[in-house]
Parts: sequence; structure tokens; C-alpha cells
Amino acid sequence: VEVGGGDDAAVLAPTPGRRLVVTTDVLVEGRHFTAALSQPADWGWKAVAVNCSDVAAMGGLPRWLVLALTVPEGTPVSRLDALYAGIREACRAFAVDLVGGDTSGGPALSLAATAIGEAERVVTRSGARPGDRLAVSGPLGAAAAGLALLRRDDPAAAELLAAFPALAAAHRRPCPELGAGPRLARAGATAMLDVSDGLAGDALHLAEASGTGLEVDEARVPLAPGVRQAAELLDLDPVALALGGGEDFVLAVALPPEVDPTAHALVECGRFTATSDRRVRLTSHGPAPLAGLAFDHFRPDG
Amino acid sequence: VEVGGGDDAAVLAPTPGRRLVVTTDVLVEGRHFTAALSQPADWGWKAVAVNCSDVAAMGGLPRWLVLALTVPEGTPVSRLDALYAGIREACRAFAVDLVGGDTSGGPALSLAATAIGEAERVVTRSGARPGDRLAVSGPLGAAAAGLALLRRDDPAAAELLAAFPALAAAHRRPCPELGAGPRLARAGATAMLDVSDGLAGDALHLAEASGTGLEVDEARVPLAPGVRQAAELLDLDPVALALGGGEDFVLAVALPPEVDPTAHALVECGRFTATSDRRVRLTSHGPAPLAGLAFDHFRPDG
Repeated sequence: VEVGGGDDAAVLAPTPGRRLVVTTDVLVEGRHFTAALSQPADWGWKAVAVNCSDVAAMGGLPRWLVLALTVPEGTPVSRLDALYAGIREACRAFAVDLVGGDTSGGPALSLAATAIGEAERVVTRSGARPGDRLAVSGPLGAAAAGLALLRRDDPAAAELLAAFPALAAAHRRPCPELGAGPRLARAGATAMLDVSDGLAGDALHLAEASGTGLEVDEARVPLAPGVRQAAELLDLDPVALALGGGEDFVLAVALPPEVDPTAHALVECGRFTATSDRRVRLTSHGPAPLAGLAFDHFRPDG
Repeated sequence: VEVGGGDDAAVLAPTPGRRLVVTTDVLVEGRHFTAALSQPADWGWKAVAVNCSDVAAMGGLPRWLVLALTVPEGTPVSRLDALYAGIREACRAFAVDLVGGDTSGGPALSLAATAIGEAERVVTRSGARPGDRLAVSGPLGAAAAGLALLRRDDPAAAELLAAFPALAAAHRRPCPELGAGPRLARAGATAMLDVSDGLAGDALHLAEASGTGLEVDEARVPLAPGVRQAAELLDLDPVALALGGGEDFVLAVALPPEVDPTAHALVECGRFTATSDRRVRLTSHGPAPLAGLAFDHFRPDG
């Protein structure tokens, strides 16, 4: 960063030969976060994390961030301080520079972040080919389980949240797969995205963008620790949390046959096909269309 | 643009050897614009324009834009269509590519735009030296006069707005100085910014950032056509509109003695000094401190 805040704009020196990867996401209080379930520092963290995750999902390494805030009148300074503390913590954790911003009054607290990264090799959503494997970079369901338990607000939910602190953390402080993104791009991934809407819907996006079929095997989808117990308490099928629950921010990738998923710490859980079927083989119920498994009610505003 | 909307992020190919210039600005309904004074297409235009202006003010050429919107529930589709039409018109007019965006529900309409440009030579606010001239790239006061007349909403104001259509346009559809920014950077400008808060306050920013004194000569500050007539109708000193009124988006630059302002279509209106005085020589009242001439009530929310 050559010129940071305080001037009309930030000045950055891009790395020669790399592509720029740019993404923007806005989080709004009452919709993407609420004081009942998380803290202002968490909101700041999350605004940085979700944007960095999008850069990683293209095979890029996030480097710079700008942030446009709207802040209701009468917001206590301590709340803004906490928000910025979370932003700075995330920037430090993910090695991105906050290079500029703008703040305006407004009726709700909102955080519009734009992340800029660099990539040697870009991986879009649309390059999967029949015969490629579908693999994920980590276990699923933690964010949805954490959110559902936080909403329950009863002693049994509190006990489970205490036993599996990663569940609430997955909702409040998601960690994007910053190392895995560029690594999988180098390894030859043919398509990639981050799981923000639930694996069922996001894997469907990969297949649709690539014009392939897809068969997901539920039995091979890795569940995060505590998800099974949360599902039992919540009287849900764990598959709903693992496939329909969003915001896990693991990467879902298409790998050509010659790339070994286990060599890249990936878990194989499906296969792209030459058909037009895009479905999941459910352990208990048999095959079901992927399109039926997007569960909007696992969102903070659901 | 190699990958546009619909993927996790946009992919851009930066020009080798150039610096990146990045800025973000958020506009909120009721604060930066209101349906009583301008149309949704104007709001979209303005969100693009103000960000492009910041890039120009660094000596850069804006190339790419991303946009994060919050939209109240129940917003008519026709309003959003008009907003996007204005965004697209401005992108076409300023030759920038809209490469990505995000939309969320929220309690107010807000537009957080991030512009990314490229610069061969960057000009910050802090390089002015004693002996440099202060010059502006265009006449001042039009946006403030236009806004004040639109607010008046009486026949005399309407008549003046009809006689000088550029006044309302300056408020509704500002045009950033995209050509002048890089040209003045090449010509050797030592400091530069865009006049968004009023020339008095913005020239003061240049002097403060550069650690110089500054003497502005009111008699040489160019007034936009109609500003004098608007001031008379509004019972204001025209200097209030020209020096205190914001959002003109002309460039204010510091030029070293060897650069001729007229050769660059600039109007000289002051001089940076080695003193600590930062003042304006008012034609009618003699010298006054620049700091006293920022008029916050010439803003849409004032």
C-alpha cells in the first residue's frame, strides 16, 4: 500500500503477471447479523471473512479491503470501536490491508466490504467436466447448527454449544479457506466456489455453470463435530444442516480424475456426470434432486 | 474483464507498470439524495460519478466498478430498473466496467460503490510546496446553487433552473474530470483533490496535508453560469455557493511555478505559501480564514 486512508483513494502496487480478483458483499443488521446472536466485533470479522472467502474461491489470495459503513445516529462509540476491532482482527488474521473506507449515517448498521486479491491461476464455477470429482475442503453443517442452537436459547442448546464451541464460532467468526484456494488452483481444480448457501445449492451452481450432471453421495459428505448431536436436539435430519445449511465457507471443487483429493486434504463426496441429472444419493431416502435441498431458514433472517 | 458477474468474484487484467487506485463511497437515500429533488436514475449515476471522481483526483483513470446495494422491501421493480439504468449510463459515459455487485434487503436504499482505476503517476493531497499555484479545472458553485434552487420549489427558482439547466444537472448528474486527472498528473501537479466539500474546505485540506500556507483570491474563483443570479434570488453571497458549496467535482490542484495553468485549461485562484496562514482574500470583506467557509447546509441532508 503506497497511499492509505485520508486521501481521495488508496494506491496499490499489484504484482506483475497476476490477475486481480474483486468481490463485494454487504451485511445488514437484522438480516445478516443481530445483537441477540453475536457481537459487533463478530460482525466486523464476518464482513471481512465473507469477502476474502469469495477471493479464495476464485483461486486468489486476498490482499486489500475497502469498507463502506452506514451507521444509525446515536450508535454508541463503544459499539463502533468493537466493530472496528473485529475488522482489524480479521484483516490481521487473513493478512489483508484495510486501505480505505467511507462512513455515512443511515437507518441501519450495514457493512459493504470490497476485497481485492491476486491470482496466478483463476478457477471459475464453470470448468467442471463429466468424470471430475466433487470434493470439499472441510466438514459441513457447523455454521447452520451453531445458528440454530444460538436461536434456541434453552439449557440443552447452551450445553451443546459449550461442548462444541466451534459451532457458534462457525456462525460468528467464519474462517475462509485462504490457503486452500490458490493451492487448489495450482493443483488443477477445474471449478470451485465457497459454500455460502449450503452444499446442495452450491454444488448445483457448479454443475449448472459447467453444464454437467452431478451425483452427490450423502454418506460421504463430512459432518462437522457436534452437527449430529445438534440435529438430534433440533429434531432435524443432519443432512438438512450439512447440505442445506449455509455459511460454512469451505470450498467445493471439481477435480479432474488424475488429481487425488486426499493429497490435497479434500474429501470426495460426489461426481460430475454427462447426464442432465443433478441429484444427491440420500442414505435413508434414496436419490433426490439437489434443487430441493436449499434451506433458506438456516439464515439469520430466515 | 475476464470474468464478470455470476461467479464468486470478478477477474481483471491490470495494465503492467501502473498503480491501482481504489476508493469507496456510500450514498444513502434521505441523506445524499431524495426523491423530492432527483430521480432514481440520477442516484445511480451519482454513485458511479463520485467514485470515479476520487480516482481522477489521484491522477488515475477509473476502469472497474463494483456496487453493493441495500434495497427496502416493497421497492417497485421500476425504481430499481431506473437506478440500474442510471448506473449503466454513467458506466458508459465514464468508460468503466461494472464487474460485480451484491444486493441485500435493508431499511433504506443505499449504494456503496467501489471504483478501481489505474495511474501512471499518482498525485496525493500532500505534495504542494510554497510558491505553487492553486488552480481549479472548472467553475464552481453550480451544484450548491442547483440544490438550493431545487429545494426552494417556487416559480422564481423554477424559472432560474429552466434558464440554467446546468445547475440542476450539476446536483443530479455530476461529471467527474476523468480526462483532467491523468493529464494534470503527467503535467506535474504536486497535489490534487476533487472539490466535494466546497473549495474553501478542500483547498484547506491540500494546504494542511502539504504543511503549507495558502492564500485564495475570491475575485479569481470562477463562478458557474447562473450562480450569481441564484445567489441573488436566494439572498446569499455568491462566495458562499462558490467556496462553501460542495459537490462540484472539479479538480483543485497545486501547480509548480514552471507549469502554466492556462495551458492546461485551469483557472489560477490562489497560491501556496511558506506561512501558516490559510485564508481567502474576500473581495468585499478582506481576508478571512478558509476554515470558516465550509457550509454544511449546502448538502442534501443539511
